[in-house]
Amino acid sequence: MNVGFIGLGAMGAAMAANLLKAGHTVTVWNRSPEPAAALAAQGALVAERPADAAQGEAVLSMLANDQAVRAVILDGGVLEAMPSGAVHVNHATISVALAKELVAVHAQHGVGYVAAPVFGRPDVAAAGTLNILAAGEAASIEQVRALLEAMGRRVWSLGEAPERANVAKIAGNFMLAAAIESMAEASALTRAHGIEAADFLEVMTSTLFAAPAYQGYARLIAERRFKPAGFTLPLGYKDVSLALAAGEAARVPLPFAGVLRDSLLEALATGDPDRDWSALSQVAARRANLPDD
Amino acid sequence: MNVGFIGLGAMGAAMAANLLKAGHTVTVWNRSPEPAAALAAQGALVAERPADAAQGEAVLSMLANDQAVRAVILDGGVLEAMPSGAVHVNHATISVALAKELVAVHAQHGVGYVAAPVFGRPDVAAAGTLNILAAGEAASIEQVRALLEAMGRRVWSLGEAPERANVAKIAGNFMLAAAIESMAEASALTRAHGIEAADFLEVMTSTLFAAPAYQGYARLIAERRFKPAGFTLPLGYKDVSLALAAGEAARVPLPFAGVLRDSLLEALATGDPDRDWSALSQVAARRANLPDD
Amino acid sequence: MNVGFIGLGAMGAAMAANLLKAGHTVTVWNRSPEPAAALAAQGALVAERPADAAQGEAVLSMLANDQAVRAVILDGGVLEAMPSGAVHVNHATISVALAKELVAVHAQHGVGYVAAPVFGRPDVAAAGTLNILAAGEAASIEQVRALLEAMGRRVWSLGEAPERANVAKIAGNFMLAAAIESMAEASALTRAHGIEAADFLEVMTSTLFAAPAYQGYARLIAERRFKPAGFTLPLGYKDVSLALAAGEAARVPLPFAGVLRDSLLEALATGDPDRDWSALSQVAARRANLPDD
Amino acid sequence: MNVGFIGLGAMGAAMAANLLKAGHTVTVWNRSPEPAAALAAQGALVAERPADAAQGEAVLSMLANDQAVRAVILDGGVLEAMPSGAVHVNHATISVALAKELVAVHAQHGVGYVAAPVFGRPDVAAAGTLNILAAGEAASIEQVRALLEAMGRRVWSLGEAPERANVAKIAGNFMLAAAIESMAEASALTRAHGIEAADFLEVMTSTLFAAPAYQGYARLIAERRFKPAGFTLPLGYKDVSLALAAGEAARVPLPFAGVLRDSLLEALATGDPDRDWSALSQVAARRANLPDD
Repeated sequence: MNVGFIGLGAMGAAMAANLLKAGHTVTVWNRSPEPAAALAAQGALVAERPADAAQGEAVLSMLANDQAVRAVILDGGVLEAMPSGAVHVNHATISVALAKELVAVHAQHGVGYVAAPVFGRPDVAAAGTLNILAAGEAASIEQVRALLEAMGRRVWSLGEAPERANVAKIAGNFMLAAAIESMAEASALTRAHGIEAADFLEVMTSTLFAAPAYQGYARLIAERRFKPAGFTLPLGYKDVSLALAAGEAARVPLPFAGVLRDSLLEALATGDPDRDWSALSQVAARRANLPDD
Repeated sequence: MNVGFIGLGAMGAAMAANLLKAGHTVTVWNRSPEPAAALAAQGALVAERPADAAQGEAVLSMLANDQAVRAVILDGGVLEAMPSGAVHVNHATISVALAKELVAVHAQHGVGYVAAPVFGRPDVAAAGTLNILAAGEAASIEQVRALLEAMGRRVWSLGEAPERANVAKIAGNFMLAAAIESMAEASALTRAHGIEAADFLEVMTSTLFAAPAYQGYARLIAERRFKPAGFTLPLGYKDVSLALAAGEAARVPLPFAGVLRDSLLEALATGDPDRDWSALSQVAARRANLPDD
Repeated sequence: MNVGFIGLGAMGAAMAANLLKAGHTVTVWNRSPEPAAALAAQGALVAERPADAAQGEAVLSMLANDQAVRAVILDGGVLEAMPSGAVHVNHATISVALAKELVAVHAQHGVGYVAAPVFGRPDVAAAGTLNILAAGEAASIEQVRALLEAMGRRVWSLGEAPERANVAKIAGNFMLAAAIESMAEASALTRAHGIEAADFLEVMTSTLFAAPAYQGYARLIAERRFKPAGFTLPLGYKDVSLALAAGEAARVPLPFAGVLRDSLLEALATGDPDRDWSALSQVAARRANLPDD
Repeated sequence: MNVGFIGLGAMGAAMAANLLKAGHTVTVWNRSPEPAAALAAQGALVAERPADAAQGEAVLSMLANDQAVRAVILDGGVLEAMPSGAVHVNHATISVALAKELVAVHAQHGVGYVAAPVFGRPDVAAAGTLNILAAGEAASIEQVRALLEAMGRRVWSLGEAPERANVAKIAGNFMLAAAIESMAEASALTRAHGIEAADFLEVMTSTLFAAPAYQGYARLIAERRFKPAGFTLPLGYKDVSLALAAGEAARVPLPFAGVLRDSLLEALATGDPDRDWSALSQVAARRANLPDD
């Protein structure tokens, strides 16, 4: 297929590369030029403006947040540039409010819209084994299925209302944050009673919690290795805020999210914001006055 | 070996049966007679009093809580009956305070003491694949290692101070409770936005949270099947209280445990206490006024 | 003085009336015409557009929230209409972010700016005994001091940075919400142990908590009289959200505000949103399954 | 009347002195002898053992906690020594569980029992202006009313079930703790936005929160003067724990109490435990990384 890809951060670049490998013609755009150049070396065409990447059968975008989606997609002329019948696949983790707004705007422009946030870090994206949560009209999803399958291990269908994929992504990230906080508190408790965090977490993540989400973060917590960050504290704060906003919209109290909000704020107030969000373990230790070494 | 086994609930009975299968001579005692009779049919000897089960090389006990350990082990004459050099293996989930008291009392009686709480439900115990957290003097653990290996898939050593195994067990159960609450809140959020809990939880437990702890409880939450309970709400409340008490003893704030305490109390105040503790999902739904059917 | 007054809700109308009584010439504007007509009967001039009320030595505004301030003051041409050297007194409870933006915008227009949120309900406003938190350049405050004193019992100076008055107002409303929640939880606890809420709260508000903030809300809680509301649940939710946002901006964790957020959301999810925010007591009772009658 | 008084801490000594001033014959006992000697100089008789102070028409006791009440009253032979028809007035802040146990034990011994916890610090006790919460059989209360009125400004009747006075006292202390935490969080928020705690708290405690409970603690927070303590952090922790236990007994979730528990634990973990519990303000500031000077 002839497609565009907008937003070439660590995730987007890896995803676009997999589209190229799968034989698609990909026109890329990124705010800064270097990542586009790297993809050009793999066969991508480079667009000068976002709208120039939007003239194929589909345009995929992987942007950082609500603001970036507004600036690039809505104010960048992308929808206006898309041919009638083309589909926009939005991989960003965005708010439910913006998700609903986008549904209306795409309809006005007569173009298809699929929300397709993903689970997986850059190495998973590079391996083409992302889990992709897809929601949108069935015909639109079918139209881009080959693209999604080139990037992901599995495409999970969440129905016709695109915002549902965003809610599920937000809820999933909330569960990740809660998993980190629960390890942070549990290992502060066991450390205070004389057990090394590494020893306790090894037991847990080899048994009941033998899941990727736990194993990766347990290692960071045990080794107190928070930089370079896979996912920074401000990004974690952003995602917990999206969960709280989604809860507000539907009037769902989320007490764990409230605790996470405060723990993340404390992490930001008391230490380097560029740490990985597994540094929540430093907040739990700090509250108990445990040594940080 | 010639050993005793005290406490034949669903867990203890399955564990004692595996000792018999491994060829050990096992004298059993239980408060009510039926479970002992069932094990007698598998070759066990039946003791009339707890002390009568304590005359071999080792005595293992799997009792419900602090009170039961006090009543049966301390007030039941078990330690007095043990031959010098024998080892008591205590599988119960008990408080850190009692754990420390037991260390002193066993030393006074000149008998060995190993704390060996386990992770796994009755079906896991029956399969002989428990994860066993063991702490105590190295020589004592070696003395009973064959017994532990007959009951468990793996024995995790947590050092010489027996109470550490109890702290780790308590911290692990706290992490389980937190996992349930995080699924409860996340699925209330996604339900309120139109996604079935089953659909959302299937994605999560097939991907990031593909761990036994999540998969089992996710199924109960998705199917709203809380009875018969694998682990009741009052037992969950007891375990979260043990975590809070362990936190108090070492001055470790545990904000997630505070939320869990309130959610479990609300579950007990507003519904059937005999439900499985995954009924925390009903509390999360109730707060958001979601229908319960 | 010759002044304008914009925004004639229950608070604004009472405040404007006191300016008239003090002998000032007051030109009023309100979105709906009735309140302006009522003040005209007391001697006010009525403006057709907000800008028409902005041509005197000072313009005071009492609008509902950030949105209303943006719509009426910024988009309504008020600053453009003000004579050079005039002062705008903004009584609204607004976000810290908007407060800072307003400082810049007023400076651009060469007009004075005083933030002057108030404590007190409409009956207090009518009596002219509000507590007024004022911040802004000293000269600007002096210029409007006679006006403030005509409306309030006391003017509290909070320095030159206008947003500080807004932060103080937000923090004060957060303390009010916390006072209500603490009465709600305490009286759920005492009710569950057989003490009528009225009896318990009478003791407390006659002794340690003999303060207006407690006495008024204690009465509403004791009598379960939540309508008509003095201050509705959505307004309470808005104010707690302002506190959380101010905490986010300065990285201040606020665990009580997190609890309040969830309690207010639960109140909105499970009952009539038009209740007074003292209906937090119904949420506390609901959690404990206490009868609501 | 001829009465005994057991427990002469700062509170008890001041209360016993007021009984002497009112003309009663008072036999006192205290664990350490100095306070008894001081009262002897004011006319008190000094008992050698608790039971020796229990032989009059009434015995009043002001002991520190559950343990002290058990040790002195139950194990000290006080009830056995009391003449039939005499009344024991228990001023201690104790758990609901012990309160109920005491009702039964007094009945067995055929002596009257009035629970009469108080609000007020030692200076208030010395002035004879305590607020006394009294519960017990009406006849018993009448029998000791003159004594209570000699020590308090007002006696608040809470019915016939003595434990209700204890629940009310516990709930009241919980409200005090919540008031401190709300000032702690609010002044961390305002400090972070450039307002001195003293300035903000002066406004609040001169207006909406012009109540003794707020004014005293606001001063300590504003001046960061936490020693000597009027009420130490461990006592605060004890009282919040009593509230949580009372909530557990009646299944009443208390989210504010959970936050208080963690804040007090953090205060104990990270600073001098001998500080006044208004040092919760240091915890709130620490979380936001505000300077502590």
